[in-house]
Amino acid sequence: MMLNQFYVDDLIKTALKEDINYIDVTTDLLIPQNQEGQGRMMAKADGIVCGVDAAVRVFTLLDPEIKIVKLKEDGDKVSYGENIITLSGKTAVMLKGERTALNLIQHMSGIATAAAHYMKIIEGTNACIADTRKTLPGLRPLQKYAVWCGGAKNHRYNLSDAAMLKDNHIDAVGGIIPAVEKLRSRIGHMTKIEVEVRNLGELEEALAAEADVIMLDNMPPELMKEAVKITAGRAVLEASGGITEETLRAAAESGVDIISVGALTHSVKAFDISMYII
Amino acid sequence: MMLNQFYVDDLIKTALKEDINYIDVTTDLLIPQNQEGQGRMMAKADGIVCGVDAAVRVFTLLDPEIKIVKLKEDGDKVSYGENIITLSGKTAVMLKGERTALNLIQHMSGIATAAAHYMKIIEGTNACIADTRKTLPGLRPLQKYAVWCGGAKNHRYNLSDAAMLKDNHIDAVGGIIPAVEKLRSRIGHMTKIEVEVRNLGELEEALAAEADVIMLDNMPPELMKEAVKITAGRAVLEASGGITEETLRAAAESGVDIISVGALTHSVKAFDISMYII
Amino acid sequence: MMLNQFYVDDLIKTALKEDINYIDVTTDLLIPQNQEGQGRMMAKADGIVCGVDAAVRVFTLLDPEIKIVKLKEDGDKVSYGENIITLSGKTAVMLKGERTALNLIQHMSGIATAAAHYMKIIEGTNACIADTRKTLPGLRPLQKYAVWCGGAKNHRYNLSDAAMLKDNHIDAVGGIIPAVEKLRSRIGHMTKIEVEVRNLGELEEALAAEADVIMLDNMPPELMKEAVKITAGRAVLEASGGITEETLRAAAESGVDIISVGALTHSVKAFDISMYII
Amino acid sequence: MMLNQFYVDDLIKTALKEDINYIDVTTDLLIPQNQEGQGRMMAKADGIVCGVDAAVRVFTLLDPEIKIVKLKEDGDKVSYGENIITLSGKTAVMLKGERTALNLIQHMSGIATAAAHYMKIIEGTNACIADTRKTLPGLRPLQKYAVWCGGAKNHRYNLSDAAMLKDNHIDAVGGIIPAVEKLRSRIGHMTKIEVEVRNLGELEEALAAEADVIMLDNMPPELMKEAVKITAGRAVLEASGGITEETLRAAAESGVDIISVGALTHSVKAFDISMYII
Amino acid sequence: MMLNQFYVDDLIKTALKEDINYIDVTTDLLIPQNQEGQGRMMAKADGIVCGVDAAVRVFTLLDPEIKIVKLKEDGDKVSYGENIITLSGKTAVMLKGERTALNLIQHMSGIATAAAHYMKIIEGTNACIADTRKTLPGLRPLQKYAVWCGGAKNHRYNLSDAAMLKDNHIDAVGGIIPAVEKLRSRIGHMTKIEVEVRNLGELEEALAAEADVIMLDNMPPELMKEAVKITAGRAVLEASGGITEETLRAAAESGVDIISVGALTHSVKAFDISMYII
Amino acid sequence: MMLNQFYVDDLIKTALKEDINYIDVTTDLLIPQNQEGQGRMMAKADGIVCGVDAAVRVFTLLDPEIKIVKLKEDGDKVSYGENIITLSGKTAVMLKGERTALNLIQHMSGIATAAAHYMKIIEGTNACIADTRKTLPGLRPLQKYAVWCGGAKNHRYNLSDAAMLKDNHIDAVGGIIPAVEKLRSRIGHMTKIEVEVRNLGELEEALAAEADVIMLDNMPPELMKEAVKITAGRAVLEASGGITEETLRAAAESGVDIISVGALTHSVKAFDISMYII
Repeated sequence: MMLNQFYVDDLIKTALKEDINYIDVTTDLLIPQNQEGQGRMMAKADGIVCGVDAAVRVFTLLDPEIKIVKLKEDGDKVSYGENIITLSGKTAVMLKGERTALNLIQHMSGIATAAAHYMKIIEGTNACIADTRKTLPGLRPLQKYAVWCGGAKNHRYNLSDAAMLKDNHIDAVGGIIPAVEKLRSRIGHMTKIEVEVRNLGELEEALAAEADVIMLDNMPPELMKEAVKITAGRAVLEASGGITEETLRAAAESGVDIISVGALTHSVKAFDISMYII
Repeated sequence: MMLNQFYVDDLIKTALKEDINYIDVTTDLLIPQNQEGQGRMMAKADGIVCGVDAAVRVFTLLDPEIKIVKLKEDGDKVSYGENIITLSGKTAVMLKGERTALNLIQHMSGIATAAAHYMKIIEGTNACIADTRKTLPGLRPLQKYAVWCGGAKNHRYNLSDAAMLKDNHIDAVGGIIPAVEKLRSRIGHMTKIEVEVRNLGELEEALAAEADVIMLDNMPPELMKEAVKITAGRAVLEASGGITEETLRAAAESGVDIISVGALTHSVKAFDISMYII
Repeated sequence: MMLNQFYVDDLIKTALKEDINYIDVTTDLLIPQNQEGQGRMMAKADGIVCGVDAAVRVFTLLDPEIKIVKLKEDGDKVSYGENIITLSGKTAVMLKGERTALNLIQHMSGIATAAAHYMKIIEGTNACIADTRKTLPGLRPLQKYAVWCGGAKNHRYNLSDAAMLKDNHIDAVGGIIPAVEKLRSRIGHMTKIEVEVRNLGELEEALAAEADVIMLDNMPPELMKEAVKITAGRAVLEASGGITEETLRAAAESGVDIISVGALTHSVKAFDISMYII
Repeated sequence: MMLNQFYVDDLIKTALKEDINYIDVTTDLLIPQNQEGQGRMMAKADGIVCGVDAAVRVFTLLDPEIKIVKLKEDGDKVSYGENIITLSGKTAVMLKGERTALNLIQHMSGIATAAAHYMKIIEGTNACIADTRKTLPGLRPLQKYAVWCGGAKNHRYNLSDAAMLKDNHIDAVGGIIPAVEKLRSRIGHMTKIEVEVRNLGELEEALAAEADVIMLDNMPPELMKEAVKITAGRAVLEASGGITEETLRAAAESGVDIISVGALTHSVKAFDISMYII
Repeated sequence: MMLNQFYVDDLIKTALKEDINYIDVTTDLLIPQNQEGQGRMMAKADGIVCGVDAAVRVFTLLDPEIKIVKLKEDGDKVSYGENIITLSGKTAVMLKGERTALNLIQHMSGIATAAAHYMKIIEGTNACIADTRKTLPGLRPLQKYAVWCGGAKNHRYNLSDAAMLKDNHIDAVGGIIPAVEKLRSRIGHMTKIEVEVRNLGELEEALAAEADVIMLDNMPPELMKEAVKITAGRAVLEASGGITEETLRAAAESGVDIISVGALTHSVKAFDISMYII
Repeated sequence: MMLNQFYVDDLIKTALKEDINYIDVTTDLLIPQNQEGQGRMMAKADGIVCGVDAAVRVFTLLDPEIKIVKLKEDGDKVSYGENIITLSGKTAVMLKGERTALNLIQHMSGIATAAAHYMKIIEGTNACIADTRKTLPGLRPLQKYAVWCGGAKNHRYNLSDAAMLKDNHIDAVGGIIPAVEKLRSRIGHMTKIEVEVRNLGELEEALAAEADVIMLDNMPPELMKEAVKITAGRAVLEASGGITEETLRAAAESGVDIISVGALTHSVKAFDISMYII
């Protein structure tokens, strides 16, 4: 798996412990422990699948001897009716892992599918969709990875790995230029600096401060277009705030480089996948 | 907090560790450690707020000395523009906790608001909305609690605390009646038994088996109505599968007791809340 | 294993860490790392064995290459002198895992044996023995499972999965009937409600409130008999409090359905098992 | 608390998580969150109390604002009817913590009371009771501490902090003397070495090897007496194996220094304590 | 504390659990629990102190009521004989926390002092010292923070937050330019890209690829000087490999921007601090 | 592995999580997931290797299918240019585990090499080098084990497994003799007692108290020699404090049994090892 294995394992164990206090009172009391069966996970919609390895891992953590064939890899397109994995092994294991595995793969595929959908909308422009730190507690690694699998880009991972100056930071030092300068004198050389600006005056300051990235906060497309012209490649421009599916294309056509979309991770629609066990 | 405190604390710590590897390179390098300020969280939409205590806890875990006033409690209605909490204390603490706190409260309020919305749709019927086990890994306690705060009901918490017989369980024993009987002879006296049925024949069997709850799987409203008549109060009837916002009212009017909705927890739309720090 | 694997693994790791800070100063300094040997666990008494898989897991977690044959499964009868498992592999691994494995299997077998013993005492009646929440911290899943393996039943797992109204709850609402009504309006449809009663008056109220289960608190057998007659199958009756091995049969013959016994899990006598390594 | 605070806290959190998946469906749905009340824990038998701080900690972890007065300290004698702690604060907190707190204090007091009882039996002899590594998984620190509070002594804590040579170790080197010599050349200078012997010949060898402690394995009192004479103070003598309450006094009168009793921790009888909340 | 509080707390708890299995057999058996005393930590050398908050936290985690005055803050200069903190409270708490607190503050101050020492050597040049990922398992946050407190800079935190192309990465794609291009098309816009080069030809390629940072691997100062000239500010230049205290100044004078030093964190000399308790 | 496996696994997982938030942005985006390669770890200096199993475990935890051949075992001598392990498997796995594995093996080999170096200095005397509790948080088991692999001895593991009376303990009781007596009456029979003395008067007291071990605190070699003569084998003598590489031999020649050296674990110089991947 490309993701940090231990992180995913820990999350799966947490999820399985949430779902089973001690035994599964239906399956453990009714299904003979050695009964064998076949299972498969099938897409019930068209989209991008993600979390295949995570779903597989649910079952192999429960029983290392289960046999699973992956028909799709993370990031693959999938159509309604296509199988994603097939399983062969103990029926009880499949029944006990089913919900946890589906919860994972449906959530991650939902994110990847949405990311691909947004990228499709802005196809042909120079812009790229990026995620945000608006993730669900405990799920950031999976959500960021799913965004990437869907073809969009990852914004900074967290508060430690890139700087983003907002009003409070700027006011504490007394202006964009002195704030960026102070920060640059203290921050590591591998860390990018982004400045949030609300108008063209601030944009000029941020450019003068040689910010690596400049976030255009809640600007209408016309203003963005002007910002792009002023910037002229001197910084990466990121549009953020109030951009909906309807206004996304216009934002992208303004010429900005990045459009960050919180909904990618904070308002995820599960991708429909069913599991069949016989 | 009504929720298990340690569970919430652990989740918050996990979220904060996701968001901060070691320091916040913007805030820690620019904001003086002792700078004090004021903050508030404000609703940007109408709905039911949930996760207030969790959001508060983010900040008090970061700094026990921060002063926070709660203007809303979990389950309260909130309108656009209303403040939910106000904060007073170190600016750096507010900036470092902001995103984690918002991620929590927006997700939980999104669930509570959706639950209330669904309940509103079926107002006046005898039915009640219930959640499912289609939760996000690691978030089940918060999600179940948010459903409850929104006025809907919690289905079984997990595989250990209530039995649900599906095809595989029934087939392994050879029929609904023998399966329920076998299960009843082995299961605790505090545990309810639900049977999933696909047609009226199976319904009759489940009633004969004296199941506590019977799930009508993917039945059209007409069939549900008939099921309600046949059942005549001998079991709790739960409608499940393929019910959308559009078909919900019809399902409720069929006379079933419970309508379970996976989307409540698997496809959550974040409730919009902003934080302002000055 | 029927039990949640990760729970058991975590407990075993905790136990092994308690038992080994860094190395085993006797075994690691004296036994050649590659010395191979044979081992076996043998019952030193008659009873019901439980925790076989957990004991096996201690050794396979220490060394996945150890070979173990299970001669008994959880819930099997075992007589003095019978072997439970045989082992073949590194001597050092057997010596380092021995005590932890024995501590687990002796405790769990002690519970299962006691549960079977109590069930034997009430054989022929309609009653069944159940456990309680009087478990040891960290051991609830294993203890509940062992009770089940011994042939008794599991009471509610915890405070989240079934309701039990005691004095404080009833007084807070103002009576059994309003309390149960209030609770029923707010609690999930998969959750049973039990009411604790101290006399026949309260029993009548609990029946009127349609409680699923009624606990007869500390009643003498004569009173229980009357309670059974009054109840006439309208609720499950549970006897609890002050019942000893001596009075157990009389309680069961009163006609109650369930007799809950805290000693099953709070006062466990270890079942004698020895391990031999050659 | 004398015990490692973090260890106890972790165990309490584990226990509370076992007991509450998300909410307490009885208390949280019926008891007003701000209802205040009084509580007390009262001994229902005579003995030695232990785990008072642990029980207190259950409640203060749930709610730091609860007021608790300790009337007894760990190791104190307590008689039937005496209060151990009194509590004042939120009723819901008391109800949610009650069982977890009682489970801890009853188990630890059971151990301390048994330890004191065994010490009483051998009063006037030179012997002292010691515990073993036959503890319950996850509870070793609490169990060892409770033994100490009851007035008996702690044997080695685990496999890392003292050496105990059994048959397998001795055979691997080829005799008691070479085994002890080999071990002494490699082990730390702060680590004691004990040798298990089955007869007087082995005792002589162990004495010649200058073992710090010698365990007389399953010897009858007469043989022990002879061992004491032979040893003449050159090593600490420990009697172990097959010693019951009936044979304990005779063993102690043989002149051995230590009698180790596994039942102290592997077969604990809970000490009866009740909690009352008004 | 500027560092992620929970991370530090977890590490301290781990350290205290390493140091105390259940009780401190010297202090807990000899020092009266309520004995009060005074303590202080005093520098035994000149340097930069770091880890003051962490050391304080050891004691406040053990006993929230201990009173501690900080005379120095992280990053402050300290001279032989100066006190760093003074403590007032339970003697037993001070004795039990002393070693763990000293282990932390001595290690972190050792790093900060070394960082300041290296920075002093290159004073007046344009270069800055940076750390590496050559940290000790579990201690990265503290080590990176200590480097920063000593006045040097932090290199990338880990493999997720910045890219560093080495031979293997370049060979897998077929050259520096295509590798950087491929990476840039897939990586987030907040992530810097560094390329490791071994000669001036590779440097030219890395410049053509517009790498943000270029690592000059094991180059002699003369070659570095040439690299600086060629680069002419088009990328940040980092010198790495084989630089000792003796050659450091020459490297800095070559005009490179960054000199990374693994020894800062992989070969730390503890800074001498003593604790006195009376 | 001789070390507690679970402890090492947990530490490796912690280290890998420190090093990878979600993906390795260089390796995961550039190296084909199925690309296979060869690797080896080679010593860049002469010394004692330690941590081989731990380094191997990093890679097998990342990918159980990687093939690794160990050419050296923990405690083996190794010379510049010798390979320690060779690896064959996925290139990406080697690249992702490389730094974590090296960080572990270089630290542990640094300790073992230093321990062997100190033992070499005192060769031919009766003394032995021992470690202390001056370890790094979270690394004690590995550090103590590495000391042992280097041929030196382990002092007490922690505050629970041996007693060490310092000023504060002695003053609290009123003298060495009463303090040791009080302690002996309460402490387990498997626990050694050491007393710290500053002059010959205190030494006489400690001998009279029959301390198992006596620490000569900061004594010059001449005084130690006298202490050895006075003691005449009645106790183990440990020299501690202010002993440097230069004064070590003289200390050893004084006739003391043990010389404890904090620098072994608090000021470790990493042993140089490189990893090559092709």
